[in-house]
Amino acid sequence: MSSSFGQLFVVTTFGESHGPALGVVVDGMPPAIAVDEAAIQRDLDRRRPGQSALTTQRKESDKVEIVSGIFESGTLGTPIAMIVANTDAHSKDYDALKDVRSSGRETVGRVAAGALAKTALATVGVSISGGTVQVGRVRATRRDWSVAETNPVRCPDESAAAEMAEVITQARDAKDSVGGVVEVVANGVPAGWGDPTMAKLDALLGAAMLSIPATKGVEIGGGFGMCELNGSQTNDVFDGERYATNFAGGISGGISNGAEVVVRVAVRPATSIGKPQTAATQSGGTTTIAIEGRHDPCICPRVVPVAEAMVAITLMDVWLRQRALRGRDR
Amino acid sequence: MSSSFGQLFVVTTFGESHGPALGVVVDGMPPAIAVDEAAIQRDLDRRRPGQSALTTQRKESDKVEIVSGIFESGTLGTPIAMIVANTDAHSKDYDALKDVRSSGRETVGRVAAGALAKTALATVGVSISGGTVQVGRVRATRRDWSVAETNPVRCPDESAAAEMAEVITQARDAKDSVGGVVEVVANGVPAGWGDPTMAKLDALLGAAMLSIPATKGVEIGGGFGMCELNGSQTNDVFDGERYATNFAGGISGGISNGAEVVVRVAVRPATSIGKPQTAATQSGGTTTIAIEGRHDPCICPRVVPVAEAMVAITLMDVWLRQRALRGRDR
Amino acid sequence: MSSSFGQLFVVTTFGESHGPALGVVVDGMPPAIAVDEAAIQRDLDRRRPGQSALTTQRKESDKVEIVSGIFESGTLGTPIAMIVANTDAHSKDYDALKDVRSSGRETVGRVAAGALAKTALATVGVSISGGTVQVGRVRATRRDWSVAETNPVRCPDESAAAEMAEVITQARDAKDSVGGVVEVVANGVPAGWGDPTMAKLDALLGAAMLSIPATKGVEIGGGFGMCELNGSQTNDVFDGERYATNFAGGISGGISNGAEVVVRVAVRPATSIGKPQTAATQSGGTTTIAIEGRHDPCICPRVVPVAEAMVAITLMDVWLRQRALRGRDR
Amino acid sequence: MSSSFGQLFVVTTFGESHGPALGVVVDGMPPAIAVDEAAIQRDLDRRRPGQSALTTQRKESDKVEIVSGIFESGTLGTPIAMIVANTDAHSKDYDALKDVRSSGRETVGRVAAGALAKTALATVGVSISGGTVQVGRVRATRRDWSVAETNPVRCPDESAAAEMAEVITQARDAKDSVGGVVEVVANGVPAGWGDPTMAKLDALLGAAMLSIPATKGVEIGGGFGMCELNGSQTNDVFDGERYATNFAGGISGGISNGAEVVVRVAVRPATSIGKPQTAATQSGGTTTIAIEGRHDPCICPRVVPVAEAMVAITLMDVWLRQRALRGRDR
Repeated sequence: MSSSFGQLFVVTTFGESHGPALGVVVDGMPPAIAVDEAAIQRDLDRRRPGQSALTTQRKESDKVEIVSGIFESGTLGTPIAMIVANTDAHSKDYDALKDVRSSGRETVGRVAAGALAKTALATVGVSISGGTVQVGRVRATRRDWSVAETNPVRCPDESAAAEMAEVITQARDAKDSVGGVVEVVANGVPAGWGDPTMAKLDALLGAAMLSIPATKGVEIGGGFGMCELNGSQTNDVFDGERYATNFAGGISGGISNGAEVVVRVAVRPATSIGKPQTAATQSGGTTTIAIEGRHDPCICPRVVPVAEAMVAITLMDVWLRQRALRGRDR
Repeated sequence: MSSSFGQLFVVTTFGESHGPALGVVVDGMPPAIAVDEAAIQRDLDRRRPGQSALTTQRKESDKVEIVSGIFESGTLGTPIAMIVANTDAHSKDYDALKDVRSSGRETVGRVAAGALAKTALATVGVSISGGTVQVGRVRATRRDWSVAETNPVRCPDESAAAEMAEVITQARDAKDSVGGVVEVVANGVPAGWGDPTMAKLDALLGAAMLSIPATKGVEIGGGFGMCELNGSQTNDVFDGERYATNFAGGISGGISNGAEVVVRVAVRPATSIGKPQTAATQSGGTTTIAIEGRHDPCICPRVVPVAEAMVAITLMDVWLRQRALRGRDR
Repeated sequence: MSSSFGQLFVVTTFGESHGPALGVVVDGMPPAIAVDEAAIQRDLDRRRPGQSALTTQRKESDKVEIVSGIFESGTLGTPIAMIVANTDAHSKDYDALKDVRSSGRETVGRVAAGALAKTALATVGVSISGGTVQVGRVRATRRDWSVAETNPVRCPDESAAAEMAEVITQARDAKDSVGGVVEVVANGVPAGWGDPTMAKLDALLGAAMLSIPATKGVEIGGGFGMCELNGSQTNDVFDGERYATNFAGGISGGISNGAEVVVRVAVRPATSIGKPQTAATQSGGTTTIAIEGRHDPCICPRVVPVAEAMVAITLMDVWLRQRALRGRDR
Repeated sequence: MSSSFGQLFVVTTFGESHGPALGVVVDGMPPAIAVDEAAIQRDLDRRRPGQSALTTQRKESDKVEIVSGIFESGTLGTPIAMIVANTDAHSKDYDALKDVRSSGRETVGRVAAGALAKTALATVGVSISGGTVQVGRVRATRRDWSVAETNPVRCPDESAAAEMAEVITQARDAKDSVGGVVEVVANGVPAGWGDPTMAKLDALLGAAMLSIPATKGVEIGGGFGMCELNGSQTNDVFDGERYATNFAGGISGGISNGAEVVVRVAVRPATSIGKPQTAATQSGGTTTIAIEGRHDPCICPRVVPVAEAMVAITLMDVWLRQRALRGRDR
């Protein structure tokens, strides 16, 4: 099923950026979970354009409407449909893009679904943080998640955040864009979630991350950096209580090992920049696109809530599968 | 379904390394495709241990037996079951691993399935090449796929191959292991395969690659390298016939664009090295493993056929889906 | 996935009868199919309550709104979301039912999806007819589909229709309900659609029909009647061009054989009748329900469009699968 | 996926009757369940031809070999592959059938998988019984499951069994076949298993039953018989502890209600009878088949273990799904 993600916690997005609305159906949410509807809107606001000088200045209010599945702030166990109207749908800039596939706007539905997943995961002690850890050549060296939301880059390293903002501003002023890396960390994932062969937790996260528009790479824990190293340097030693290092990124043999699950996704520079360029169309041909501004010079800050959402959605799925196989949460 | 991969071309592997046999069931193979059974065995032989001084010296003959779905070298359209007996199953070294999940030996089934996928893809002009493009800090700078099978590292750059072999030998002599990167390239993939949202071709390849044991990262085309660059540097310009560059790795907006599909996977240094270490067990506890030798100092050469197989399996799935939606191959 | 039907043409319904709206997402609709939006509304109107004296007198306008996937009356190939607002949601009668699962109102989304499926199937010459062929002990003996929509029972046998209407009126006057049988016939299904083992076309139709509320049986072609007969009486002889009889109901060995596909579904008497009764609640307990009227004395006439929709949805799925496996429509 | 059944407990069968072996892969079996391998063989023996004068006299030993997933009679939680060699594969009679799809022999794998499902279900108190309840016009009026295995018809009504045997013998002597009905009852299914919309337990059972070769109808509880009745006659009244009647067949609104789950399947007269007839071939054409004997005059006795298996497989799936959604067995 091409527009769905997940097997037990199934997220199906729909809607075109030039149509009346976008939305999502979440099937598989357990019943009787308390939902803070404001938290859904908060995550949507984090994804929304126009948050800061570093993002596109398009105006989309992105107000979520819950159509089904939630009654008096509790889940019913039935599919949860949520809709966000397109208020800026018919603007002139977007008309030019009408035939170009795979708008980032579809991620609205993912963020709404991810907010539900976060709520459910919180009931078993799993929390999720995310931030921008690289912009251009600037890399974060600290992971202070409490500061990630206090700067417009969403960087968990305050001093790197300032440098990143400068790189983004330069790209914007040059009518260009710049790439970066977004990291998501899941805390409290019990050991044992995942599968050892095809449905490895790494594999599911890989699909989740690379389904986000403009991503071209994903790594878990030590990732590509480990390729340069030896086994004796990268084996995480478990002392019976915890791992001293986390090269495995919290996943051993496809299954969570109790350590933090750490995922990074490579975000390419936005292809929508302020000079004419060529793009493939839905009908198989090509079109020349000249975007008059309002584009994101670096989409990492707005990818952060989307990446968090996709990690949360993935973990929901493996949690429910764990319950199916074991009859318990861990 | 945890032990299956794919939606229309569904590959289900089974078998434990300490049991009587391993195998695979391939469901969704179109009928009336001519199968060269020797080609299946050839790919299995490429995955097999003991091929060179650079790989483990374990002895596994890995002879494939076709149980169903193929009659007089043609596919019937019914599930194709293939089995490989475990001849080295009960050795002392392996006994120590009995409770450790996710043996690389499960990939036998994937390679057999991948050989079928390659055969079917060839009928529409798609061919797949793979090789080791990084070992430790040594990187291949050329992609001459014709030489990849002529050196034990399976490197498409002959001079880099020699350096890589040296790095691997050093690791082996130190009873250590070393990581690397495997690249797979699919040639002839028509434009239009894939989906624009959840089932992006990038996403499916991400799941496929990260389901391979010991992989901790995957990138498409420019991958993580693009994160340091600007949009003006990384936009592939299509001149109406072809792309001058291939930062997109042959996939734009989740859908093949007619260029070569390029995937790289990060292979961590094998965790099985010649000194005692701690590993998680299936029962949730830990065990100390001391492997007396016969391990792979670098598993990249043996990952190559597995990675090719997973790319082929993924492309089969999107090809069949393309036919479902369009009623034609492209 | 519990709220979806289909593998390639995936229909996901959502919405509670007491919530703001119901709806459906249809994923897998091929692109560039002309959609007659009025035809969707027409089928919804056939399902709607209050059509005649024989159905419930509840007022639901059931106006469909297309949210995505269709642009200028053509399909985009993206998910098609459709929504129907609940105008009568908060009536007093329904409040009593709030905690009772599985309202028939969810079928609104199925009918809308089925209308799309019918449109697509028509492009390959498949047409679908349905009607009530039994009410109580009265059975239709003719299949004149052109008259089915001219009588409120939707019976393809005009004289039986009058008798059936009388039986329904008696049940209504007695504040009771009566059961019946709905038949759906698909014309023009090419030979070859379906699968020979688990995904037999019979099996998919069985799931489709028994997912309709209040159905407790399904049969294909000769169905249960064949159990009394001999093989020599029930083997459909193919003379090289057509079958003289159709005991197989158009499906041999799980695969369409070119004859009309004939499905019948047993509709139990509505459990909602005008006297207090006991029902299971979502929370696992029981509640006493006294429905003050406005119920359907026989739901067959309103099941007809739902059963047609489910047959159409099922055939879409096997058609697309046929294209995936064969690369052509037949 | 065409050769698989189930979403969480996934059963994939493979093998042709004229090939070397048939088999099954069961994915999703929970770990640490004690397996009585003899019980698997016992159910296979119940399905085997040549059990009595009433069944085909073909000789197939049908010895099951467990390839994976079970170690020292306990499940590992990995896929369980089982294989049965074809010893009678190349006989002359079967050669004539080589091109005819959908042999009943594929059900060998289902029975083996069903035996595993029964074992697992027994751990939560669910037991499954089955028998032939109609042959031709003879109907069982009692359900004494303890006698079903004591007569060759597998009828739970001893006096009806004798009459049924006579009807079958007459058909056999006339080189003809006769149809019948098989009933399966699941005892101890807790209330709450199933889903209220698309994945109703009725719907899943409908697919399961109609995926069995030669079945053309399925009904739950009161089934088609209810179509003649009124709601006041067929509403099962729950007195707070149990239902006095069971017209719902243990399933209300798609979800088990705590009563016995009762399913009946219509088995058409075997099409393989002792006179020339026409059949569709895999290649879309037709062939004339003259079977020289050794056919089943009534396949009901051999369908019984298959139908039980499919009910068990279906219940496993909804049980695991219940655990996923609720985190507990009921």
